[in-house]
Amino acid sequence: MDAERGFPKDEFRSRTARAQALMSNSDLTAILLTTEADVRYYTGFLTRFWESPTRPWFVVVPVAGDPIAVIPQIGRDLMARTWVRDIRTWNAPDYSDDGVGLLADTLREVVPVGGKIGVPAHLESHVRMPLSDFNALQGSLNDRLVVSDRKITRSVRLIKSERELAKIKRAVGIADRAFARVSDIAAPGVPLSAVFRNFQRLCLEEGADWVPYLAGAAEEGGYGGVISPADDTPLADRDLLMLDTGLVWDGYFCDFNRNYSLSPPTKAVSEAHTRLIEATEAAFEIARPGQTVARLFHAMNAVLGLGEETGRLGHGLGMQLTEAPSILPEDATVLEPGMVMTLEPYVKTGPGKIMVHEENIVIGDKAAEYLTPPEGKELRVLC
Amino acid sequence: MDAERGFPKDEFRSRTARAQALMSNSDLTAILLTTEADVRYYTGFLTRFWESPTRPWFVVVPVAGDPIAVIPQIGRDLMARTWVRDIRTWNAPDYSDDGVGLLADTLREVVPVGGKIGVPAHLESHVRMPLSDFNALQGSLNDRLVVSDRKITRSVRLIKSERELAKIKRAVGIADRAFARVSDIAAPGVPLSAVFRNFQRLCLEEGADWVPYLAGAAEEGGYGGVISPADDTPLADRDLLMLDTGLVWDGYFCDFNRNYSLSPPTKAVSEAHTRLIEATEAAFEIARPGQTVARLFHAMNAVLGLGEETGRLGHGLGMQLTEAPSILPEDATVLEPGMVMTLEPYVKTGPGKIMVHEENIVIGDKAAEYLTPPEGKELRVLC
Repeated sequence: MDAERGFPKDEFRSRTARAQALMSNSDLTAILLTTEADVRYYTGFLTRFWESPTRPWFVVVPVAGDPIAVIPQIGRDLMARTWVRDIRTWNAPDYSDDGVGLLADTLREVVPVGGKIGVPAHLESHVRMPLSDFNALQGSLNDRLVVSDRKITRSVRLIKSERELAKIKRAVGIADRAFARVSDIAAPGVPLSAVFRNFQRLCLEEGADWVPYLAGAAEEGGYGGVISPADDTPLADRDLLMLDTGLVWDGYFCDFNRNYSLSPPTKAVSEAHTRLIEATEAAFEIARPGQTVARLFHAMNAVLGLGEETGRLGHGLGMQLTEAPSILPEDATVLEPGMVMTLEPYVKTGPGKIMVHEENIVIGDKAAEYLTPPEGKELRVLC
Repeated sequence: MDAERGFPKDEFRSRTARAQALMSNSDLTAILLTTEADVRYYTGFLTRFWESPTRPWFVVVPVAGDPIAVIPQIGRDLMARTWVRDIRTWNAPDYSDDGVGLLADTLREVVPVGGKIGVPAHLESHVRMPLSDFNALQGSLNDRLVVSDRKITRSVRLIKSERELAKIKRAVGIADRAFARVSDIAAPGVPLSAVFRNFQRLCLEEGADWVPYLAGAAEEGGYGGVISPADDTPLADRDLLMLDTGLVWDGYFCDFNRNYSLSPPTKAVSEAHTRLIEATEAAFEIARPGQTVARLFHAMNAVLGLGEETGRLGHGLGMQLTEAPSILPEDATVLEPGMVMTLEPYVKTGPGKIMVHEENIVIGDKAAEYLTPPEGKELRVLC
């Protein structure tokens, strides 16, 4: 399926129906959503305006009926272009009542006395509204209780539709083309900050809508931090350069990295790279419906031999750079068709130094499929 | 002062001391911070890794002593490069306890029984951790109470240092040069999506570290939505193009827009633009220490003549695209030297259409100063 902007109404109806089916088997009569990805998932409301922390945005998904948007007036026009018909607005920011009254009215209308309202409360979630307002909301619900959403939103978002998948593939393709052009922007003497700036430019040139995430490093024989912004240190002849990007196309992310040696790699670096590719392949080979996420961890770690405090070796991917589940020995999530994951093994290459590799896959009906063109065992060399 | 990357330790000591002075006059014995900007403000911890929603990050500022970081292991190296010496980590994500126990231990150590812990709870804030974990935290504090931070973090962040100001000016300069090059990327027939993509490229070329925010529109005689992402509609001869960017240099934002007419503007559009400039100037003229934010609103609206449900006409600016205060008739905040504000008037130009203008200013000792080179009364024309 080719990626197209937006989704037909049926996509949102289907998402809503899946959530409602889970709700009707739970003790919830509504779910309240407050974060960018959750609001967008059920409505299609796509804007970079969430960068402003000032205004809260709410969507209520009742156990029956369509989602209701309770949002600042400034978003009415854009929300009216989505499939959502019940749009209630207030003139935010309002110092006397920044949407709490309107939201409480809506919840009291939708949820009977004694009913429970679910809020996403799993690891990747938070409640995006001022704490004082959240407390005030809970105090004005007249015997309706705010509880966890029983991981319903997490479950529904876990399985990507064909249309979602097409968008992720499009994002992957853009980053793949940008990675192929790194030799144009990276060479000994170029500051890492310039490489980062120019790599983002390449992502845009190749078709990214925007580039929310870029991390990386350049050091000899491996790198320390993998979450640092770039400094102005010039690349050196013997550096290993790593770039890890999460760029967006129509609201969907890719998340993968590539490593580049600035001169013919040492044997140690070559072997580390090979090991990373083998670990990735080991997880890929066993990734299929019915398999657990924990097994992906063990398949990789059988190759990597990491010890205690390993951390996760990949995660879900989609509307956010990282989504549930986490590839950890403790994660018992069973893989299902439509789940998109990153495989992200690392090896220690020296004191305080590691090397990381990352690919993106989707679980198909019988096996996994690479979304990223999988990297070969030969490390990329820039010189 | 020229902008330099990072801050000396004294900057963070001073920020912490200002917060602690306010705390010692309050009922709080510690403040708990959970969001990117608040954590970075007291520590200098700058990373794009917050794009991942998976892991929570905590900083505790006690009423006496230095801040304590309670963070995922993956951030230890980067945090160790800041001035923070007390860094406590756990191996996140941890399904059995994702930092709650470690944070509770830290708070119980720092806050006596019966003590109060403040969490930012004002309009621009939220608690960035899973609700279930926040509830668990509150339940394990043994008679210590989590309350609002009495707006202390908001107050402290309101006043920018010379070094912060230099970074904002640098960001402004980058965007200003990108705006000067819009004629290179926008012309009739070019899809708005290409203009957005290329404008971000220009921002990077001119020196932006990254471009977290771009909105805008192109329509004849004014525009409807101002928070939409771009679609592929080609620019038309008579369009009015508006681009509004929040780009970042070393973690500090600018936030301003520019309007461009693709052909000689109609009288109505010219007059609307002139009115916007006059409104901006009216607020600028009276902006000085001792003046209230509300008066800025009224100064602009005396020119604009907007009616009910006007919305705000500007806001604070700094580490975030929008910060407190909001330029509203209800905002009684008294201006002080070091406050950075956007002035953001708009006018209605037709049914469902508006035109918006935005400049950035700083309050000086006696008067305001433009950070953006203020736009003239002649609208920019691209043809």
